[in-house]
Amino acid sequence: MIHYNQVAGQNVKRIEALSDGVFAIALTLLVLEIKVPEVHVHSEEELFHVLVELAPKFLSYFLSFMTMGIFWTGQAFQLSYIENYNRDLNWNSLFFLLLVSLLPFTTAFLGQYITFKLAIGIYWLNILLLGLLLYIHWNYACKKKFISLQTDEMKAIDKAIRRRIIVAQTLYLSGALLCFINPYISIGFIILVQLNYAFAFFSPRIPKKRKV
Amino acid sequence: MIHYNQVAGQNVKRIEALSDGVFAIALTLLVLEIKVPEVHVHSEEELFHVLVELAPKFLSYFLSFMTMGIFWTGQAFQLSYIENYNRDLNWNSLFFLLLVSLLPFTTAFLGQYITFKLAIGIYWLNILLLGLLLYIHWNYACKKKFISLQTDEMKAIDKAIRRRIIVAQTLYLSGALLCFINPYISIGFIILVQLNYAFAFFSPRIPKKRKV
Amino acid sequence: MIHYNQVAGQNVKRIEALSDGVFAIALTLLVLEIKVPEVHVHSEEELFHVLVELAPKFLSYFLSFMTMGIFWTGQAFQLSYIENYNRDLNWNSLFFLLLVSLLPFTTAFLGQYITFKLAIGIYWLNILLLGLLLYIHWNYACKKKFISLQTDEMKAIDKAIRRRIIVAQTLYLSGALLCFINPYISIGFIILVQLNYAFAFFSPRIPKKRKV
Amino acid sequence: MIHYNQVAGQNVKRIEALSDGVFAIALTLLVLEIKVPEVHVHSEEELFHVLVELAPKFLSYFLSFMTMGIFWTGQAFQLSYIENYNRDLNWNSLFFLLLVSLLPFTTAFLGQYITFKLAIGIYWLNILLLGLLLYIHWNYACKKKFISLQTDEMKAIDKAIRRRIIVAQTLYLSGALLCFINPYISIGFIILVQLNYAFAFFSPRIPKKRKV
Repeated sequence: MIHYNQVAGQNVKRIEALSDGVFAIALTLLVLEIKVPEVHVHSEEELFHVLVELAPKFLSYFLSFMTMGIFWTGQAFQLSYIENYNRDLNWNSLFFLLLVSLLPFTTAFLGQYITFKLAIGIYWLNILLLGLLLYIHWNYACKKKFISLQTDEMKAIDKAIRRRIIVAQTLYLSGALLCFINPYISIGFIILVQLNYAFAFFSPRIPKKRKV
Repeated sequence: MIHYNQVAGQNVKRIEALSDGVFAIALTLLVLEIKVPEVHVHSEEELFHVLVELAPKFLSYFLSFMTMGIFWTGQAFQLSYIENYNRDLNWNSLFFLLLVSLLPFTTAFLGQYITFKLAIGIYWLNILLLGLLLYIHWNYACKKKFISLQTDEMKAIDKAIRRRIIVAQTLYLSGALLCFINPYISIGFIILVQLNYAFAFFSPRIPKKRKV
Repeated sequence: MIHYNQVAGQNVKRIEALSDGVFAIALTLLVLEIKVPEVHVHSEEELFHVLVELAPKFLSYFLSFMTMGIFWTGQAFQLSYIENYNRDLNWNSLFFLLLVSLLPFTTAFLGQYITFKLAIGIYWLNILLLGLLLYIHWNYACKKKFISLQTDEMKAIDKAIRRRIIVAQTLYLSGALLCFINPYISIGFIILVQLNYAFAFFSPRIPKKRKV
Repeated sequence: MIHYNQVAGQNVKRIEALSDGVFAIALTLLVLEIKVPEVHVHSEEELFHVLVELAPKFLSYFLSFMTMGIFWTGQAFQLSYIENYNRDLNWNSLFFLLLVSLLPFTTAFLGQYITFKLAIGIYWLNILLLGLLLYIHWNYACKKKFISLQTDEMKAIDKAIRRRIIVAQTLYLSGALLCFINPYISIGFIILVQLNYAFAFFSPRIPKKRKV
């Protein structure tokens, strides 16, 4: 007898497509908040001030987009190597997407209550859980042999993925702890970490072709 | 002469892609309801209370996400085995997606009017119809031989799918009927059933590789 | 020298994916309008009335979903036979998607101003243009030999597609013209036509396997 | 040792799927702004005026849709030739999508403050950055040999892509500069340029089959 749970959720392609859909929405969720204000302006300067007042929303949007991009890339990277899937990984990915869709909220919450430790804590918790689920995702797939790790290249990639998540999460934790000194230093540090992951200032950049 | 209805709607890949799109939106629909409240707070405790007041919305979102995940997995599973498609299955899937997109509403309606039998009834009806359409979807595909059921493995999978839907729907019905005793017991029971389907507490978990 | 317009827009797969995205949003656009009302109710009967008041929105949603489903199936069907694509077809599809995304508006407009000829006219115009673009889409693809029409089966499918669009649009036009007698008869007729296309009451239903 | 940044972000298919999702949302973002007004009207003429008042929103929507269509086609075209991908291209595409999702805002901003140079400037900046990122995207892919440029056809396509972006951006810049004479002439010119790119009035239209 085969149990439903033993055979359901094995389709990596569908998780990829669903993820792209959820990420596409989450990526654009905060842009929905930026409405064109309907005010009467009489000069270019006044209009400029209208734009400037929207700046915090643009910043929140940019921050949320960047973080989302980092995790989208991370998940896409793992999935490109995972050949088999099962219900545990399926639900790991679904809860990962749940956390992704909450990120615009926690980012906007941080933007609104920027001087409060709780806002930084919630934002950090969101990022921590995203990283944790990604780590469990990869670890589980390795254990179950859903990835062929025979070759040296794959072993090196395995190490690179784990190292990346651990280093990133350590930096995020350090950033979050800085809020006990000053909230702005804390957020500034976290944003710098994310900017680095997006723009790769301090990373080797010689791209290597992957054999497909 | 070939009639349009005999040849339209045969593309499984497109139904999969459309489903991923509709599910992605439905999954994130209730998160759109969670706005960052713009209130003046003076302490961490006050901010904490702001968050706590949002708790029912987070719970509704979590419940809706979990239910959606269960049905997404169920539909994806069926489609991964169905090789042919026709207009009847096409429209079955479209109405399935209609019900999916209504789930955030019925969940929020339940959250708002939690002590009313009608709210539980509507929520249960939504889940019942989703299960019913999935059952008809599979049954029809089997009858029309759109799935090759020669092998013993496939026969076992066929049984697993049918058993799963019938057991789940029996549990949901029992849960809904509990509302005649107490609405909270009723909802609590339904949530426990869904948590079990998401986290598989009482299920065999040895994953089996599917030959692709 | 190759001009950009001679080579751009040849990717059928991308148009399919973009269409699934736009349709997924358009399909769920009217559900965004259905908010759970936050009123104090004291009995099941009162709650029932709250639901009943939402009925027109549910009907609009259902009507819009059904129409969208008809055109999604129609476009998906054509694209499954079209092997090549070019910028003209690319832009035909983009404007088709523009009209798709306007359908929730014209449906809701009809729901709001149901007794006015103008509302029926706008709704009909939307459906007419959708059908027109689909017809041009298929006709152009046939002319440019982007579909192989050598086989008898393909010729029969070609006829089926053209006949379908022409018959459907004639029925829609007749329905729209009925508004000069009575708006409700007009809308009722159009809805019956769409119900028939969704549920295929009067159509041969013996599905034929397509060779893939 | 392999660094994460050397191997992440290599999946072209995923960027395509994410782009289709983000474009689908961005394409329909301004349609969300067009709500059916709930006013009491007593004649067809009054209802007609209700529609006419919505005209600016429809125009903004049309303009935004057309611009989006141009850039979607441009990006899809490049990606159909790029065989390899890396983290730099991955992030180039993510920031391209960020700019795409801002286009509905800058278009609506232009619609609201049509007589101000700042509104034209912001709108033009958005289009400039989109073109710039697309140009860098292609240029980088060529340099890194992610596209095979041996054949004469590919060299001609390379030239066609570069020429197209440079000519288009020169026209947009000229249009934007016209705002120092008159804002309406400026916007009118930009719209004409975009209409030409959508409908290809002045372009050779003999489509060439691409060998796939």
